Amino acid sequence: MTAIAYLGPRGTFSEAALAQLPASAGADFVPFASVPLALDAVRSREVLSALVPIENSVEGSVTSTLDELALGEPLMIVDEQVIPVTFTLMSRTGTTLADVRRIATHPHASAQCRAWLRANLPAAVVIPAGSTAGAAAALLEEPPAFEAAIAPRIAADVYGLSILADDIGDNDEAWTRFVLVSLPGSPPSPSGADKTTLTLFMREDHPGALLEILTELSVRGVNLTRIESRPTRKALGDYYFSIDCEGHLADARVGEALAGLHRVCADVRFLGSYPRHDGKPPLLRPGVTDSDFAEAQSWLSSMRAPN
Amino acid sequence: MTAIAYLGPRGTFSEAALAQLPASAGADFVPFASVPLALDAVRSREVLSALVPIENSVEGSVTSTLDELALGEPLMIVDEQVIPVTFTLMSRTGTTLADVRRIATHPHASAQCRAWLRANLPAAVVIPAGSTAGAAAALLEEPPAFEAAIAPRIAADVYGLSILADDIGDNDEAWTRFVLVSLPGSPPSPSGADKTTLTLFMREDHPGALLEILTELSVRGVNLTRIESRPTRKALGDYYFSIDCEGHLADARVGEALAGLHRVCADVRFLGSYPRHDGKPPLLRPGVTDSDFAEAQSWLSSMRAPN
Amino acid sequence: MTAIAYLGPRGTFSEAALAQLPASAGADFVPFASVPLALDAVRSREVLSALVPIENSVEGSVTSTLDELALGEPLMIVDEQVIPVTFTLMSRTGTTLADVRRIATHPHASAQCRAWLRANLPAAVVIPAGSTAGAAAALLEEPPAFEAAIAPRIAADVYGLSILADDIGDNDEAWTRFVLVSLPGSPPSPSGADKTTLTLFMREDHPGALLEILTELSVRGVNLTRIESRPTRKALGDYYFSIDCEGHLADARVGEALAGLHRVCADVRFLGSYPRHDGKPPLLRPGVTDSDFAEAQSWLSSMRAPN
Amino acid sequence: MTAIAYLGPRGTFSEAALAQLPASAGADFVPFASVPLALDAVRSREVLSALVPIENSVEGSVTSTLDELALGEPLMIVDEQVIPVTFTLMSRTGTTLADVRRIATHPHASAQCRAWLRANLPAAVVIPAGSTAGAAAALLEEPPAFEAAIAPRIAADVYGLSILADDIGDNDEAWTRFVLVSLPGSPPSPSGADKTTLTLFMREDHPGALLEILTELSVRGVNLTRIESRPTRKALGDYYFSIDCEGHLADARVGEALAGLHRVCADVRFLGSYPRHDGKPPLLRPGVTDSDFAEAQSWLSSMRAPN
Repeated sequence: MTAIAYLGPRGTFSEAALAQLPASAGADFVPFASVPLALDAVRSREVLSALVPIENSVEGSVTSTLDELALGEPLMIVDEQVIPVTFTLMSRTGTTLADVRRIATHPHASAQCRAWLRANLPAAVVIPAGSTAGAAAALLEEPPAFEAAIAPRIAADVYGLSILADDIGDNDEAWTRFVLVSLPGSPPSPSGADKTTLTLFMREDHPGALLEILTELSVRGVNLTRIESRPTRKALGDYYFSIDCEGHLADARVGEALAGLHRVCADVRFLGSYPRHDGKPPLLRPGVTDSDFAEAQSWLSSMRAPN
Repeated sequence: MTAIAYLGPRGTFSEAALAQLPASAGADFVPFASVPLALDAVRSREVLSALVPIENSVEGSVTSTLDELALGEPLMIVDEQVIPVTFTLMSRTGTTLADVRRIATHPHASAQCRAWLRANLPAAVVIPAGSTAGAAAALLEEPPAFEAAIAPRIAADVYGLSILADDIGDNDEAWTRFVLVSLPGSPPSPSGADKTTLTLFMREDHPGALLEILTELSVRGVNLTRIESRPTRKALGDYYFSIDCEGHLADARVGEALAGLHRVCADVRFLGSYPRHDGKPPLLRPGVTDSDFAEAQSWLSSMRAPN
Repeated sequence: MTAIAYLGPRGTFSEAALAQLPASAGADFVPFASVPLALDAVRSREVLSALVPIENSVEGSVTSTLDELALGEPLMIVDEQVIPVTFTLMSRTGTTLADVRRIATHPHASAQCRAWLRANLPAAVVIPAGSTAGAAAALLEEPPAFEAAIAPRIAADVYGLSILADDIGDNDEAWTRFVLVSLPGSPPSPSGADKTTLTLFMREDHPGALLEILTELSVRGVNLTRIESRPTRKALGDYYFSIDCEGHLADARVGEALAGLHRVCADVRFLGSYPRHDGKPPLLRPGVTDSDFAEAQSWLSSMRAPN
Repeated sequence: MTAIAYLGPRGTFSEAALAQLPASAGADFVPFASVPLALDAVRSREVLSALVPIENSVEGSVTSTLDELALGEPLMIVDEQVIPVTFTLMSRTGTTLADVRRIATHPHASAQCRAWLRANLPAAVVIPAGSTAGAAAALLEEPPAFEAAIAPRIAADVYGLSILADDIGDNDEAWTRFVLVSLPGSPPSPSGADKTTLTLFMREDHPGALLEILTELSVRGVNLTRIESRPTRKALGDYYFSIDCEGHLADARVGEALAGLHRVCADVRFLGSYPRHDGKPPLLRPGVTDSDFAEAQSWLSSMRAPN
């Protein structure tokens, strides 16, 4: 049976995201305590793939995911999922809001529920936990060390808890993006609305190096959707670039851009081409479709080998 | 007396960084529970400035700092500080390593000390805390809920604790960069080795928009040292760019590039020019020094108003 | 009385163009035998200005004009004029087409009337002349050495000749562009539809040098209308660029682009800003008008000197 | 027997250039009265190829050659030749300098010998001729209409004339570049020091169009050696670009750049790849050799089809 790793424990946003992923139907869900552990389980073939968070609208990039993909043993992204981040206050059945004096959750979650807490439970003490789902799970201990937990809604189902208040986050638009990671191999077929993720290492840090890189993309009509410079950990001031762009490895424009990057960078790591979660097709300028590339190549060939 | 806010509680890396900052000599150090609270204290003139983390080699950008500076009431960076991140295992005096069964610390810190813990205290339970310094402080409670804390070395001094093991992090090169933030005003004078921080909002998300922006910088010889796209929180897919570049607002090349960005962006927020922590002067190509700009301007003036 | 030089002798396209130029009203027209002689007459203040051809749709650039402006003692273009090139077959009164056995004209002109000659005077011999107008003038000699001349229509008026056939050129769209050249000084005021002419000398011939130059223009929204690389005559392979772009020296975007070029080139020679003959205003992208530049500058100043 | 056309009559610089061309050994030299006639002889297979002037250091581009190649029935450049332009004063044997009262030559030639004539034959009358070689030939007529001609040295040999004065041009560095033109076919094999000539038609005249084109070349490391905008004759203000760049159609970087241009231009006409007359190899930046392209392509293939 197919096993898919996710960032556990049970009841996390990762599990919620995984449950919504078509690829997870019928699979065995295996929680891991950290992103590196989940990814190592893919590398060791313990699981087929792993769903890990890569970017959060509030907290930013998940650097352990970026760095594992960029610097660790090679892996490949084969799908992505974006889910809204909504926080739920939950407790054992029978507890009411008035009973809540101590609330456990991860510090990031309490930070994002500050307004609701101030308005509704100003006297409650917030107890930091290693994860939101872990806080929910700990409500089952006897005796519990606190009356309520802030966690993803799914944790209430998983642990049989009651919901005291739903959607208590300050930010209505918060979301987390997850990527499904497998061993390197053939990417999924192009869907017509794909994204490609790359890690780029500069040959040397000269002025204009980033401009050169972006020109390799833009001259072939490949648009960026995310960019971030990240320290390589080798030396202070030594950076790599983590990039998402529109299109698929199989697209002519993406392929030529990748080959161009390979020529100008010290190293390019192809991290996968996969369907966009929002199905939004790229906006292409004239001259950059596959048939434009094919037509240009055939013109070139006719020049090189007339008749 | 001058008061400077920092990310508390007492004993944090922020306090260690602040203590090393020349500007802090003789100042009153005021801890705050979060970056937004520390920055609000600057806005309300409760303190003169605040030292807050902006970037960590392991965890990445501190998004609350980036977003507060980009999206909150205007503030200005006037200095930066980079300190190595080294973790120390500390306890009340008299406790030995053999006594340690429970260790409290922030989840990020325990994640970075995993190898040492596995090798030296494989049986110890790690208890999550809201901050490393808070874990150290909690050792003073009676009775303490754990035997040891992983925290910055400064926390041992601050709370009168003993050091059980020093420098136990897995990553020798880990560092955190802090920025000293004040109310908007005149930036510090150019030092000859400065950095400028900007937030850029695109006029619209068209292909090549980032290339246009980088061209405004590169055409004037201004080099980037950090770039990151960040969601604006207004809509999914609506990004701003957070950028550090070499040079000072007073430099002719930086000024012209800023004015150019102001013309092509929907909005540019100037977040400050300040001396680089490493004193490394920019590598300039020919034609972009202040005297090159002055000479060109004087040539232009002589064309426009001959004699 | 104002004297204006032109490329003679009497009856040339230059004289026709000059007659149509508003600036020539009431001026004394002085013919010179060559472009360098006409321009030297400006330099020596013998005349106020000179109208010389710079570009012809059929023959291309007039290199003696380009090189004199680029390499000779400085001069300035203050106006331009474009006239259609139409050729007229003319003779002494009384001569008919049937009488014509010998036709004199400049080799360029006969080349452009080949089709008409083949169709209408297949047996006529073409005698080369130093200029079309000179051929017309020579019809007045006694006895004339040929029966007809191909020359600009104005030559018939000037020399009292009869027109045998009008508009006999093969190319309906042929035109010549003339520039009115004065001593360096303040350019004419901006008209809203201006052109600026430049000569650019590279600092060294490195790959991408031309791209750098064009970027200085495009980043400020200045569009090119003509470009040509020309040998400097110093060494084989040493080129300068002769460029026309839209806009006026007084325009903020043109001024900043010129100063930028001055910084990256070995030398920039400003050859004048003047109203376009066709009155076509530039197509400007957002952010590059004078008020955009002024607003950006004032924003920059407010950053540099708050309050 | 191989026939090669050249710009006649006998005794021209074209003939001198052709005689020096390796390809001409053993060929029959066929003079034509104009560039279009010489090229038409290639198109009609009357001759195998034609040597025509394309660029002169003093007079600039030979627009009839540029336009025929750009706009006429397709042809291909297969070689180039550059020869110094030196003028010789020649006469029938027995004539001395003191005898010379009338000198025939092409107006361009007399313009370039002005200083020598002023110094040595100030009283001589210059009679315009359709070509320098034609003037030399006309010395053989009985009776000759003038005593001397200014022509290429080769004309003295061809017509059995005596040399009165050699190298009488004002400009020591004058040169003319010729191209050998054939029917379209396979270009000559790469020599390692090649040039490629192109004609580019813009899709529409938008600001930055030229920058786009040059970026297609520079991003693949292809350097320009000549550029010129030329009217298409279709409408005033409608231009094409005539371009020479380093490298050969068979070079990977040139091929990819050509295909890129084909995608962004309304039309690209490949006019040939041929050895440079000076044998100067291109200066290549890292990452653009054939083996760099091959290695990048093989890397891309391994991503697209792992295993």
